[in-house]
Amino acid sequence: MGKILNRYKKIVGSEKIKEIEKRAKPLKGKYILHINATYYGGGVAEILDNLVVLMNDVGINACWSIIKGSEPFFEITKTFHNGTQGYPIKLTKEVKATYEELCRRNSVYINFCGADAVIAHDPQVLPLIKYARPDRKKEPWVWRIHTDITQPDPDLWNYLKTFIKNYNEMVVSDEKYLKDDIGLKQTIIMPSIDPLSKKNRDLSDKQARKILKDAGIDLKKPMICQISRYDRWKDQVGVVEAFKRIKKEVDCQLVLLGNYATDDPEGAAYYKKTKAKAKGLKDIKVIADKGASPLLVNALQKMSEVVIQKSLREGFGLTVSEALWKRTPVVAGNVGGIPSQIKHGENGFLVNSVKQCAEKTIELLKDDKLRKKMGKNGREYVRENFLITRHLLDYLELLNRIIK
Amino acid sequence: MGKILNRYKKIVGSEKIKEIEKRAKPLKGKYILHINATYYGGGVAEILDNLVVLMNDVGINACWSIIKGSEPFFEITKTFHNGTQGYPIKLTKEVKATYEELCRRNSVYINFCGADAVIAHDPQVLPLIKYARPDRKKEPWVWRIHTDITQPDPDLWNYLKTFIKNYNEMVVSDEKYLKDDIGLKQTIIMPSIDPLSKKNRDLSDKQARKILKDAGIDLKKPMICQISRYDRWKDQVGVVEAFKRIKKEVDCQLVLLGNYATDDPEGAAYYKKTKAKAKGLKDIKVIADKGASPLLVNALQKMSEVVIQKSLREGFGLTVSEALWKRTPVVAGNVGGIPSQIKHGENGFLVNSVKQCAEKTIELLKDDKLRKKMGKNGREYVRENFLITRHLLDYLELLNRIIK
Repeated sequence: MGKILNRYKKIVGSEKIKEIEKRAKPLKGKYILHINATYYGGGVAEILDNLVVLMNDVGINACWSIIKGSEPFFEITKTFHNGTQGYPIKLTKEVKATYEELCRRNSVYINFCGADAVIAHDPQVLPLIKYARPDRKKEPWVWRIHTDITQPDPDLWNYLKTFIKNYNEMVVSDEKYLKDDIGLKQTIIMPSIDPLSKKNRDLSDKQARKILKDAGIDLKKPMICQISRYDRWKDQVGVVEAFKRIKKEVDCQLVLLGNYATDDPEGAAYYKKTKAKAKGLKDIKVIADKGASPLLVNALQKMSEVVIQKSLREGFGLTVSEALWKRTPVVAGNVGGIPSQIKHGENGFLVNSVKQCAEKTIELLKDDKLRKKMGKNGREYVRENFLITRHLLDYLELLNRIIK
Repeated sequence: MGKILNRYKKIVGSEKIKEIEKRAKPLKGKYILHINATYYGGGVAEILDNLVVLMNDVGINACWSIIKGSEPFFEITKTFHNGTQGYPIKLTKEVKATYEELCRRNSVYINFCGADAVIAHDPQVLPLIKYARPDRKKEPWVWRIHTDITQPDPDLWNYLKTFIKNYNEMVVSDEKYLKDDIGLKQTIIMPSIDPLSKKNRDLSDKQARKILKDAGIDLKKPMICQISRYDRWKDQVGVVEAFKRIKKEVDCQLVLLGNYATDDPEGAAYYKKTKAKAKGLKDIKVIADKGASPLLVNALQKMSEVVIQKSLREGFGLTVSEALWKRTPVVAGNVGGIPSQIKHGENGFLVNSVKQCAEKTIELLKDDKLRKKMGKNGREYVRENFLITRHLLDYLELLNRIIK
């Protein structure tokens, strides 16, 4: 027990490790079943991958099942995902039928047997509780929603509530996502990054330079970057506009790195739009990398003078913590979970426009001392708040409370 | 219990349904866990999808879990898949480590709790048994291999045997795949088709014509077709060569329909090769359809005068049963599971060369009575041997034997 956990000792200190071990003890041998929509792609799968292993490492029998989807189902749940974040959606009888029928079918595929608690992630798997086998032992079910649900589409939210009410608890990612129209205990568990993963582990300058060089990126000029999926809510076009302003004051380079799902025509179109916006400008790289190498992301975040995350909407925006962890100050949109990660003026800046984004980036580029200080603050802020060990501890507290 | 099963009554008769219900009774409430590598694509996932639902329908708690793979892992298991069918492979220490480590990791994700029997499908999940949680209740494990293992790569086979020996039983798809070098009870369970699925359900001529017309296929000339993944073992190039000979005797058309995995460069190259071979020839359609519509497959198999399956190697080749079920005689390669489906001269012909393939297709095209007779025989042969109800019954017998 704790072989993997111990690797985090040098990062978070032995007190934290001891606390985790203490909280894990009463849960030894308990079966916890995580269920979500996919093993691959997306922040939720990335987090579960390591979290489930760590849970097992501390003695819990944490399992992870995914549902078998279908194209029409995933099209619907994509609109639901957007709908929870306020995008208007059309909720027809057919949509509901497809959504519920798929969950009904999956309720037989998934082995709920023996579970001491079930944690269902996001809207895709929400209706499962309605169909779970009648012979289950009334274990508590938790709905864990990862999106920004401050202003969901009202029809969608009313519909989802018909399933949510069957759960024992709901977990959200930020204080502002707590709902007052749900008669359910709610807990905040912020997401996290894994400091030992390829994307976040410490690289030497030499290693990072080599990775960038192999990707065709030199460091002759100071670098700023944004790493995120091509999507209008990530506002890469706004970043290019800000860069034009920045470039007038500081001679630097911009790298945009991200992917778009092959089945996402909007993403492909937005990538093209970004490319067009950058056309003819010097020192910009607009890269679409399907399986974006985690080591390249790591090196970019580490070697950039400033990391930008100019989102207009954001579920949580963990790329901010990723960059801060590498001691790089971040200039980011004041939306979603970003203000929980950036203390304005301490480890980065929250901005509301292209103009502000450019100004604050220029300020940082011109001030070595400020960058260094903010970078240091960022590292410590993430160490305290956004590492997988804190995430694990939050889950242990939740599980200790709900499992009798 | 049996609501879905009852839909098969009009197809297989009430005796068969009663037999299934009788065999299912002692298994009521038992937890059976199927594990394979993917929910999507491939014959195994297609079969499990309906079979698991049917098992639940007759009162068994059949569950279905998949493993979380990785690119290097799936590259390795693809070579293993080919290796079990005789393709030479290079088995390094690193290959073994990647293969086993991924299964070790998945052994914690999968919820084995409560299982009364585990059925692990194909080499991808074979090592799981080595790492299954120590608190399991010693339920029987069955390894179900779907490939042609008459002549596996010797090194690979020796390696796989180190895992196979931990199982209680092994299930193969054909008598000729039984192994004499394994100290394990072996059972033959042939695969099956679902007569109620979109791909196999009865279409009217009118419906079928409309589907074909919408796909740009007219029936002005007699049609022959082959439906399979673009792959050299499916020998589409040989089909085009046969068609050239056929065309000299009978004015007809050929449709080749299939897909290739987007991450399979060999498949893409073979598709191009087939296109090149067909270039300049009249009345040939070479179609690569990623998500080949099951209704189009259905209509093609139904409305063709002859279906060809000129495979050079074949795990089982269920497209043969699919075509026979639609009362279309099949001319197919004498390999893998095909001779178990085709009774030479009764419901189709087994052929060993382009020449034979052409001759037998010509014979059928010229003889309406023979086609009709063979088509009728094919329908009955599949009804008796290759429907999902027979498949379910075989599993029930296996489970009744191994679950105490």
